[in-house]
Parts: sequence; structure tokens; C-alpha cells
Amino acid sequence: MTSTATPVTVLGLGPMGRALAAAFAAAGHPVTVWNRTPGKADGLDAAVATTAAEASAASPLVVVCVINYEAARSVLDPEALRGRTLVNLTGGSPEQARDTARWAEEHGIAYLDGVIMTPVGGPDAVVLYGGPAEVHAAHEATLAALGGKPTHVGEDPGRAAGFNMALLDFFWTSMFGVVHAFRLASAEGIAPGELNGYAQVMSGLLPGMVDAVAEHVAAGRFPGDESSLDSSASVLDDVLDTIRANGLDDAMLAAGRAAVRRAVDAGHGAEGFTRLAAP
Amino acid sequence: MTSTATPVTVLGLGPMGRALAAAFAAAGHPVTVWNRTPGKADGLDAAVATTAAEASAASPLVVVCVINYEAARSVLDPEALRGRTLVNLTGGSPEQARDTARWAEEHGIAYLDGVIMTPVGGPDAVVLYGGPAEVHAAHEATLAALGGKPTHVGEDPGRAAGFNMALLDFFWTSMFGVVHAFRLASAEGIAPGELNGYAQVMSGLLPGMVDAVAEHVAAGRFPGDESSLDSSASVLDDVLDTIRANGLDDAMLAAGRAAVRRAVDAGHGAEGFTRLAAP
Repeated sequence: MTSTATPVTVLGLGPMGRALAAAFAAAGHPVTVWNRTPGKADGLDAAVATTAAEASAASPLVVVCVINYEAARSVLDPEALRGRTLVNLTGGSPEQARDTARWAEEHGIAYLDGVIMTPVGGPDAVVLYGGPAEVHAAHEATLAALGGKPTHVGEDPGRAAGFNMALLDFFWTSMFGVVHAFRLASAEGIAPGELNGYAQVMSGLLPGMVDAVAEHVAAGRFPGDESSLDSSASVLDDVLDTIRANGLDDAMLAAGRAAVRRAVDAGHGAEGFTRLAAP
Repeated sequence: MTSTATPVTVLGLGPMGRALAAAFAAAGHPVTVWNRTPGKADGLDAAVATTAAEASAASPLVVVCVINYEAARSVLDPEALRGRTLVNLTGGSPEQARDTARWAEEHGIAYLDGVIMTPVGGPDAVVLYGGPAEVHAAHEATLAALGGKPTHVGEDPGRAAGFNMALLDFFWTSMFGVVHAFRLASAEGIAPGELNGYAQVMSGLLPGMVDAVAEHVAAGRFPGDESSLDSSASVLDDVLDTIRANGLDDAMLAAGRAAVRRAVDAGHGAEGFTRLAAP
């Protein structure tokens, strides 16, 4: 059993790494930290190591959270990590996670690859982990210091990253929609403060739409009685006309319109827009 | 003053037109309806006209809500409408709204161009109107039958459509993100029911992001301390790699990535993602 006082090392002290170190320390774990550039540990209740290898050798559980997998691999010392557990909370693709898991296995390092879905430290924090169930079980009590319930999403070390990539696909595509909507509004003489309240109403429709997509994909049926691909195409043409009339970049929604066209051409025009989510 | 018993004509009895007719009738207005194909008035407390012209001549206030502006223009009889008020709740672009307002003016028809933002009939219904303030004021009491508070957004008859197009730009771009996320999840072996809960968490982040964009655009400042265009680019590259590794359509997010690249190349990499909303 892992005791709540398991020593933990945190490699990388960006805003996320600092939050991780603070959360482990607050839960009573002896914490060792390291960052490539010094001075980032100020205010943390942690021992500061001068090298990543020294920091890694200080604890049975080593957490790395840096800018990307390339940076992660450059700070991970296989000899210092051998026989320890490495939890990688650096964001990246499933393939990068699987590659790093293979590297860890070759060097006798137990490995979990996690993603931080919501800010750590609070009771609602969501952190997902992929990798061997027994490794997750061995460290679950320690990882609970990050808040919420550590969630094991599968043995595939790329699976947490898979969730993350799908969710970021949704999030960033939506964010492009948000910024483009405010640009289009400005072009139409609508101030951001005028648009905001109505955009909030639109935001409020999305959870129900996400539910509908999940339900239709699970059922393999895409009813078009409320909104068909044909009617979506008509609305999208109006929006694209307006974007183009204002001389704004139409590339993103034009790409979406092309996906609708392909689905209509394939005979799905009377089905719902959710048809585009069919595997 | 418009009395609450002003007769109202509704042209077009799709789901939206039927809801309009039902709401006017429920508020005590004598209602006349017409639809291109018969049999759609079943269950409505309304007189059924056999032609659009006959229906238009029956009321001082005529509401049209059909599939698009082309269809609207084909059912509007200028002689039957002369001297009356026409409220067009058909969805379309600001230019189509302005064109139709010019046509109405030429024929001596008072004109409002509105958009139905949320389903009519309830207390929270949101319907926006553009056009002459005095025309809106004259019919505000009658239009209140649709629920909520009729909102006049300006003298420009295209302005309600402008709001609508910006909001639909956000909504549909986001919807493309939702369906693509579920496709990507399927490709990564993640079932829709597994993704849904986390996608709901992501949806819950959007209202705050919309607020942030509105605030940054209003201030003309795009702070990048929480998320810069440079860091967005790095995340987007991971998501795009994952989309491509699964052989899925990358066109939409690639177009977004290109917009980020242009902003970074223009020297805005350290600014926030919200910079893309700058007019």
C-alpha cells in the first residue's frame, strides 16, 4: 500500500507543475521539485534539486509536466528512474504517450500517462490516467492529492491522451467559432457587449447537443426530424455568404460545409447533422 | 395603439410557423394562416386561407416564416400587403433582409426583419427585430404574444440577421467540433457514452471563454498569460497529428491552425488566443 506520505518528485514548474507540487505538499507528501530554469520553486513547500536526475532519484513516484513530449523526454533520465513509477502529465497525442510507455518499459520504469482535464487541487478536479491498472492502483491514494477521483481509463497508455485529443478537438474548434463570431459581429456593427448575452444563450444549447450526438452515435441512428443535413446546409450557406460579404476568412466553415456536402451527396440529406459523427 | 386582439396572419406552417400561429392564437389574436401545401393547419385555432394574397389581406400584421428568403419573396404579394406591416421571421443573411426591406418600402409595406433565437411561446423566448423603431413600437404588444420581450436591435433591417449570423457562426462551428470529437473518440476506441460526461465538462467551460473574448475585444487587449497563441499552436498540432494518424478529415481544424499561424507570423504569438477575435 502507498501511504499518504509517499515522497513525490515533480519535474517542471510551469503553472501546472507548480499547482501539482503545491497539491502534493498540501496533502502531506514530502515533495522534491526541479525546473530547467531556476527560481520557479519560490513559495513551494518542497526540496529543490539541482538536476532532473537528482530529483528523480529522490522519490518512488516521479511526476513530469512540461510543455510537450519532446521536452519531457529530454529531462527524463532512465537510470535515475529505473525501478520507480513515472506519471507523465504532459499533454500530447496518444502515439506520443504509447512511444513514451515503450521507452519506459525498456528501462524498467513503471509508467502512467495522464491528462489534466480541469485545474488540479479542488474537489472537482478531473485527471485521467492510462496504463497498467496495478500501477494506477498502487498510486491512487497519492494521486488523489490532486483533487477529485483519479480515473483509470484503461491499460492502453495512450487512452487518456485519446480522451484529451477528442475533447480538445471539440474545445478548440468551438473556440475558433467563438472568436470568428465576434469578428463577424464587429464587421456587422455589433459590439462585443451586445453579442455576449446572446452568445451565452447559444453556449447553453451545447450540452444538450453533445448529449444528442452521444445518444445518436451510440444508437447508430441519426434522426433528422428536428434538424436535417439538408437544412443545416441551407443555414451554413447563409452564414458563409455573410462571412464572405464582410471579407472575412471563410476557410473553417467552408471546410465544415464541404463535409455536409459529402454527407448529402452520399444520400444522408434527410438525416440529422449528428450523422457527421458516425464512425 | 395595437390592441391585444389585433388580427394576425401567419404565412408558412412549418414547425416554426405553426408555433407562431399557436402563440398568437393563445394570446387571443384572431389568426389567419396559409401554407403552400394544405393540411398543415390541423389543430390550429385559425382561419385557413386558400391563397397567400387572401391570407395577407386578412390582417394588418402579416408574419412570414418559410424555409428561406427566396421562398418568402415567392409568397409575398405586394398588392395584398400594401399598407400593412410585414414581419419576416425567415432566416437569412443581413443582405437578404436589407434587400427585402427595400422591396417592401417600394411597395408601401411597413417592414420588420426578425430572428427567432430560441423557441417561441415560453417566457424566455428571444426574438430580435431590425427595422424602423416606430413600426416595432406599434406592434410590440402583439409580438409579445411570442413570449419573452420583443427586442428591437436597430433601424437597420439587416441587424437582427447580423446577430443571427454571428451566433450561428459560433453555434455551427462548435457543432462541427462536437461531431468531429465523437468521430475522433470512436477512432481511438472511446465509446460515445465514455466521452459524453467529459464533453459536458468542456461545454461548461465555453460560457466563461465567451465572456473573456467579449471582454478582450471590448478592451482591445488580448492578454496571453493564461493561454497564448504560441501554446494554442502547440496543442493544435497534437490534435491535428491525432486526427491525421486516424485518417480523419483534418480540413476544419487545419484551417483554424492556419489562422493561428498567420497571427503568430504577424507577431502576436505571446498574445492570447482571443487576439483572433480582434476586428
